[in-house]
Amino acid sequence: MLEELKKRVYEANMLLPKYGLVTFTWGNVSEIDRESGIFAIKPSGVEYDKLTPEDMVLVDLNGNKVEGKYNPSSDTATHVELYKAFKDIGGVVHTHSSYATSWAQAGRSIPCYGTTHADYIYGEVPCVRCLTKDEIEDAYEENTGKLIVSEFNARNLDPVAVPAVLCKNHGPFAWGKDAHEAVHNAVVLEEVGKMAYRAETINPRIQPAPQELQDKHYYRKHGANAYYGQGK
Amino acid sequence: MLEELKKRVYEANMLLPKYGLVTFTWGNVSEIDRESGIFAIKPSGVEYDKLTPEDMVLVDLNGNKVEGKYNPSSDTATHVELYKAFKDIGGVVHTHSSYATSWAQAGRSIPCYGTTHADYIYGEVPCVRCLTKDEIEDAYEENTGKLIVSEFNARNLDPVAVPAVLCKNHGPFAWGKDAHEAVHNAVVLEEVGKMAYRAETINPRIQPAPQELQDKHYYRKHGANAYYGQGK
Amino acid sequence: MLEELKKRVYEANMLLPKYGLVTFTWGNVSEIDRESGIFAIKPSGVEYDKLTPEDMVLVDLNGNKVEGKYNPSSDTATHVELYKAFKDIGGVVHTHSSYATSWAQAGRSIPCYGTTHADYIYGEVPCVRCLTKDEIEDAYEENTGKLIVSEFNARNLDPVAVPAVLCKNHGPFAWGKDAHEAVHNAVVLEEVGKMAYRAETINPRIQPAPQELQDKHYYRKHGANAYYGQGK
Amino acid sequence: MLEELKKRVYEANMLLPKYGLVTFTWGNVSEIDRESGIFAIKPSGVEYDKLTPEDMVLVDLNGNKVEGKYNPSSDTATHVELYKAFKDIGGVVHTHSSYATSWAQAGRSIPCYGTTHADYIYGEVPCVRCLTKDEIEDAYEENTGKLIVSEFNARNLDPVAVPAVLCKNHGPFAWGKDAHEAVHNAVVLEEVGKMAYRAETINPRIQPAPQELQDKHYYRKHGANAYYGQGK
Repeated sequence: MLEELKKRVYEANMLLPKYGLVTFTWGNVSEIDRESGIFAIKPSGVEYDKLTPEDMVLVDLNGNKVEGKYNPSSDTATHVELYKAFKDIGGVVHTHSSYATSWAQAGRSIPCYGTTHADYIYGEVPCVRCLTKDEIEDAYEENTGKLIVSEFNARNLDPVAVPAVLCKNHGPFAWGKDAHEAVHNAVVLEEVGKMAYRAETINPRIQPAPQELQDKHYYRKHGANAYYGQGK
Repeated sequence: MLEELKKRVYEANMLLPKYGLVTFTWGNVSEIDRESGIFAIKPSGVEYDKLTPEDMVLVDLNGNKVEGKYNPSSDTATHVELYKAFKDIGGVVHTHSSYATSWAQAGRSIPCYGTTHADYIYGEVPCVRCLTKDEIEDAYEENTGKLIVSEFNARNLDPVAVPAVLCKNHGPFAWGKDAHEAVHNAVVLEEVGKMAYRAETINPRIQPAPQELQDKHYYRKHGANAYYGQGK
Repeated sequence: MLEELKKRVYEANMLLPKYGLVTFTWGNVSEIDRESGIFAIKPSGVEYDKLTPEDMVLVDLNGNKVEGKYNPSSDTATHVELYKAFKDIGGVVHTHSSYATSWAQAGRSIPCYGTTHADYIYGEVPCVRCLTKDEIEDAYEENTGKLIVSEFNARNLDPVAVPAVLCKNHGPFAWGKDAHEAVHNAVVLEEVGKMAYRAETINPRIQPAPQELQDKHYYRKHGANAYYGQGK
Repeated sequence: MLEELKKRVYEANMLLPKYGLVTFTWGNVSEIDRESGIFAIKPSGVEYDKLTPEDMVLVDLNGNKVEGKYNPSSDTATHVELYKAFKDIGGVVHTHSSYATSWAQAGRSIPCYGTTHADYIYGEVPCVRCLTKDEIEDAYEENTGKLIVSEFNARNLDPVAVPAVLCKNHGPFAWGKDAHEAVHNAVVLEEVGKMAYRAETINPRIQPAPQELQDKHYYRKHGANAYYGQGK
């Protein structure tokens, strides 16, 4: 079932090594079929060069496997929480991409220093706290998802406008309207993490880009008045 | 019309992924036919691996599309301003290349620390200020071009000798006698941005290269007494 | 003899250039057959693109060559000491991979800043001191191995849980249950060295990941309660 | 004439792009035939992907072209000075490789922080001063060579044991017994420049490797008691 979905999720997973976002099996992509409430996700620990579309695992929003010969990604419960809370997203990706993970290890949100960032992500990429000991020991992956959601709510962030997050001492999650856009945003995140890292070294007194410039670039590409690209 | 021009502009655009200067569609190259006052430029948001010479868009110096099935690059109005003001240039390129963009985000001009820089760019690569709120909201891309021109005039810079600029919180533009040379200068800019970044880390009290060394290398390659290469 | 062993060691050696861990001949991998007490190791100074499985050298735990037309790696005596003391390991690798070697040159252990590290290495990657003048002049390579072993004992470290070490002013050794896993751990080491380097730049007041998070990730992948991957 | 020499020099030049040491035409390699006192060198400004063995230019130790359709490298006069003074070297290379050039721009010698460096280069890689205004304006390239030689003499350095130098605000020269070894040393230089850059960031109070460790590694590979590799 959902063969097209599995194929798209397979292809989106294969973009991770193509864009240099993964070492070994350190990443997973999923996409949800909102009608059935079922999503396809990479199996756990299977190497990218051995992956096939049929290997994708189907999971429902209770986290139960619906179809597949493999165990789903160990991060499946995080994907479930994000899909349940963020109704407008259709794809989720987790990686240990190098710069984004370094920011996560450092425990810092990535400020918006320029238009490369503002073109895709509205405002800083938030870094959420570590889970507590209790949260870790009891349903770690589920609690990771719940924490992201509660922090987005507390900060009043729109997950469509802020399609990425850093989990302190862990790494990034990104998302989008489908698996392909989620991976696209993960690439953007890695690039802006790299540029912000270097920009802070070049100028330790750096400030975020002016709000009006951030607005201009974000809305040049998003929303009713967007004029970048070839239109709809 | 202008098939040769479109082919050259296509080829120059394809050098951007070859030299690692672009992620996704984050760059555009143009070249002008000075006789007709028409330039060819990359269409907006079209992926590099799908691009063909026929996709190039022809635009006049009023910014009006003359030929092409696609919308031209969203930065077209900046190209127009540069061509109108800098009469001796024939090609323009905009990228979000990583090091140059990091310097732009940091809001700093790139000092000339060595001969790699001096061989191609006379003196520092200037970083121009952000646009004001009014300038952003009214004709952003056109005002970007006008600001570059007015800053070059105010600093008494010759755009032939200084073939690159950084726009604060945004990224670089580079140019040259044609599209190919513009891209060549964009590669140089990225390299000198990378070296300057590292050199400042290695020696925080670094000073620019002596003026006489900068002169020697610049004029070894440019002007009547140049002796690098195989002559004309 | 031991043709399968030589083939595996050859293949593991060839992973070093594949993963970008070596320049020229700066690395070597071995794997031991515990039954016979003989291990296969790369020959000294032979280039990777000329290497064949037959070139692997067989050596016993007294460091004597048992078979092979070439001299074994100049680091053979270090491998011997590690195999003699660390009974549960089956493969050893030495490289001059760039980030790990930079940490070794800096003389610092790599703190565990995140789950990328904790997934594979329990606690920091220790950096052991330089050998003394006497230790260097008398049996340098053997003493390198003895020092690693005595430092692991003194720090009460389990070499299975901490499968890597940095030798001050020299570089890393890594190991695993076989040659392939040893190389895998060397790749992990390089990645965590890179991330830790950047994370400290991003946040100079960075602290190691909480112990409970390190435990969670390590034991998610190792031991009786592991649930990452597809099980046994 | 000297067809074998030209072929070797061509091949050594082609190693520069292979090892990532050059952008565009920013590098040149030569090798001398000591019997005739003639060396082959890359032509000036010719792109690597168009180069052929026949394009190599033959030059004598007065700097006069002996054979070749092209002008020799603009740095030819520097090569001449190095061959005249350093009798035991047979190949010379100049690049603008990124890390080595950054150290040169910073005006700092590269300390020996580890065995990767000590395996090939005895002690620090010296950075020589900028030329004076007079030295630049009168025979710049020749004076670059003379300065390197006089600094090596003043510091009592053996060019066989220290096969590389940095020219302040310019870049590196390296050399060896032939063109191939010269390029090999240029690769080593870039690697040790990269590691030293990172090691200083990891530990700002870093000290050079102990002299006895430097000696051990240098003499493990060089001289009468060398035991690395497969012998002669």
